[in-house]
Amino acid sequence: MMRRAICRRAFVPSNYFAQAAIYNASSRRPYSIRAYDIDPKALKITKTDKPKTLGKPEDLEFGKTFTDHMLTIEWSKAGGWAAPEITPYHNLSLDPATCVFHYAFECFEGLKAYKDSKGNIRLFRPDKNMIRFNKSASRIALPTFTGYNLISLISKFVKLEADMIPDRRGYSLYLRPTMIGTQKTIGVGPPGSALLYVIASPVGPYYPTGFKAVSLEATDYAVRAWPGGVGDKKLGANYAPCINPQLEAASRGYQQNLWLFGEEEYVTEVGTMNMFTVIQDAKTGQKELVTAPLDGTILDGVTRDSVLSLAREKLIPEGWKVSERKYTMPELWQASKEGRLLEAFGSGTAAVVSPVRNIGWRGNVVNCGLAEDQESGEIARKMKEWIEARQYGDEEHEWSYVVD
Amino acid sequence: MMRRAICRRAFVPSNYFAQAAIYNASSRRPYSIRAYDIDPKALKITKTDKPKTLGKPEDLEFGKTFTDHMLTIEWSKAGGWAAPEITPYHNLSLDPATCVFHYAFECFEGLKAYKDSKGNIRLFRPDKNMIRFNKSASRIALPTFTGYNLISLISKFVKLEADMIPDRRGYSLYLRPTMIGTQKTIGVGPPGSALLYVIASPVGPYYPTGFKAVSLEATDYAVRAWPGGVGDKKLGANYAPCINPQLEAASRGYQQNLWLFGEEEYVTEVGTMNMFTVIQDAKTGQKELVTAPLDGTILDGVTRDSVLSLAREKLIPEGWKVSERKYTMPELWQASKEGRLLEAFGSGTAAVVSPVRNIGWRGNVVNCGLAEDQESGEIARKMKEWIEARQYGDEEHEWSYVVD
Repeated sequence: MMRRAICRRAFVPSNYFAQAAIYNASSRRPYSIRAYDIDPKALKITKTDKPKTLGKPEDLEFGKTFTDHMLTIEWSKAGGWAAPEITPYHNLSLDPATCVFHYAFECFEGLKAYKDSKGNIRLFRPDKNMIRFNKSASRIALPTFTGYNLISLISKFVKLEADMIPDRRGYSLYLRPTMIGTQKTIGVGPPGSALLYVIASPVGPYYPTGFKAVSLEATDYAVRAWPGGVGDKKLGANYAPCINPQLEAASRGYQQNLWLFGEEEYVTEVGTMNMFTVIQDAKTGQKELVTAPLDGTILDGVTRDSVLSLAREKLIPEGWKVSERKYTMPELWQASKEGRLLEAFGSGTAAVVSPVRNIGWRGNVVNCGLAEDQESGEIARKMKEWIEARQYGDEEHEWSYVVD
Repeated sequence: MMRRAICRRAFVPSNYFAQAAIYNASSRRPYSIRAYDIDPKALKITKTDKPKTLGKPEDLEFGKTFTDHMLTIEWSKAGGWAAPEITPYHNLSLDPATCVFHYAFECFEGLKAYKDSKGNIRLFRPDKNMIRFNKSASRIALPTFTGYNLISLISKFVKLEADMIPDRRGYSLYLRPTMIGTQKTIGVGPPGSALLYVIASPVGPYYPTGFKAVSLEATDYAVRAWPGGVGDKKLGANYAPCINPQLEAASRGYQQNLWLFGEEEYVTEVGTMNMFTVIQDAKTGQKELVTAPLDGTILDGVTRDSVLSLAREKLIPEGWKVSERKYTMPELWQASKEGRLLEAFGSGTAAVVSPVRNIGWRGNVVNCGLAEDQESGEIARKMKEWIEARQYGDEEHEWSYVVD
């Protein structure tokens, strides 16, 4: 009871900040008025009459199997948010002139629901997702809402889908809140209507047989994000342009791109993950966990924030330095040559952490500190354990939100 | 007959270039094989049994009224392009996990069909649209096709919709070819299926009562495009992020944004139009028509290209200079103060040309050379006349493609 009260309090300032952070332009629009907000009490539920069963968890492929239901909430400029509905999973029927097909009025979130050892369902830091969802929506003139109201609806949705959450460590129900502009016009302007929906996909561990370190290709011929752009928002617009470079990298044996920025070749992020490195100081030998700062060109990852918090909590007392700072490929290359690049890993909702073996850069292979038979460094492994302990409720923590 | 033969020849190299210009990554994918190409001969037509009538042309609002039919062509990685279909206009039914809703796998084109004085239907430089459509699709891992095959299908489509093309100068049928990724998965990767469709909207003159000069706000706090990005492609991704700045500009009385780039404050484009200025040399008095170069940050507009061609054909012999070069707001400001900024206008398919009265920049109002009672400069007016003469077939020219 106490725990939930803490969570509730945590959500109020979150929403406050979400509202405050809304891009100025939007604050003049009627949809920021509370009277137009999402109302969880108005939820209508229509259950499927043909329920699926989960099947073998080990056969799950990320994002291909979906549960029986979906949560939808329509919005219009005149009427605000309509009554939320949970209905059987169904196709969306949209006019071909709908603005989402032409001008990318679309943003999304990704979070997971976990079953703990007592059978409770838990969400991990959903308030962070709601803040970001509002920031993303607001940036492309889509409506905003009070984050806690959607968390409340998502809670009801995941309870209904409880049987579709695999009851096994490493498994979870991936949730995909999505918002699209639905106005039927090809004129370029703010959408007068929108649809928020949430679909859910049961997923297995990203690395079923334990960690598998990946190789990244440092990419500068294409540029993911720019100051004054939208690379820090979770917009559809940031993804399609990254696919060709991903195929290019794959053709040379790399799993993902490591996006560089500028002549200095700043390391930014991986597109589907934030990037962390462990560098040892040449003079003092001090270990430093480094990630790029939130300067508008990288996504403000929930896992990124969790890694940083845990590092400050657990590594700094052990003498570590934890830095959000700009760093470059030449710096990593130099550290690697001198044996001071101890470790590198990506962070994201899908894999939690993803160890990096090496980075292809200007014809060089920058070794990231793993021995040949090693698939993860120490910090990546510890971070995964620490975060999962909170996700699955082994450690009670305010990051974990128990669905009641 | 001769004319048509010339057009056909013109399309072959166009397609050749489209293929050649395809982003490297795609060329390894099966869909660039000709055997998988769009086949106009396979077209199936199902006509509506409830035909609409056009109504009063003067009531038309851009992009809100659509014709009775649509052209659709499905694509899959395994089977290539399926048989094209013309069917009654209908909603698209798509799974909520479809990749177009999440990762902005979408690109489009805009062109118009005109009725000439003899009742022929004409398209304006459709080969240019096809080249760009292929470049856009290819950049986001969507399939490509031989441009002439789609022009052939669009021709059949507009003939079927002939009654919906207003028979009056300034009126036309706006065509919107669109391609979306349709794969049902939220994994981030190249779409395994896609849908190309074309819808059509009868439209009136952009300025029904003659030109109306617009005001632009020079914008640097948000950035539309950057080197290594996708600002030169007609992707949905380039549009949604521009709406909030457009609302911001509108709140200060400006109709559109003039997108600047970099510390030098380079003038790029307007987002829905390319930008032209007429500057007189301080020493020689020579007049120069200036537009930004195709450096990857501006759209390669068909009207832009037409304005440049006409300027080279008709203005250079009169002693003008015609330049595709970088130019800055400080340069425009200086020229304006000295009375050497003679004219400015945007170019695009919707308005052909759109005269600019002034540009708001750093608290200044940069006057673009119009007298208070004047709505257009001389060159904007002439360009509109010259281009429309070719669009409506008053002047026979290879830019105009007569539908047979």
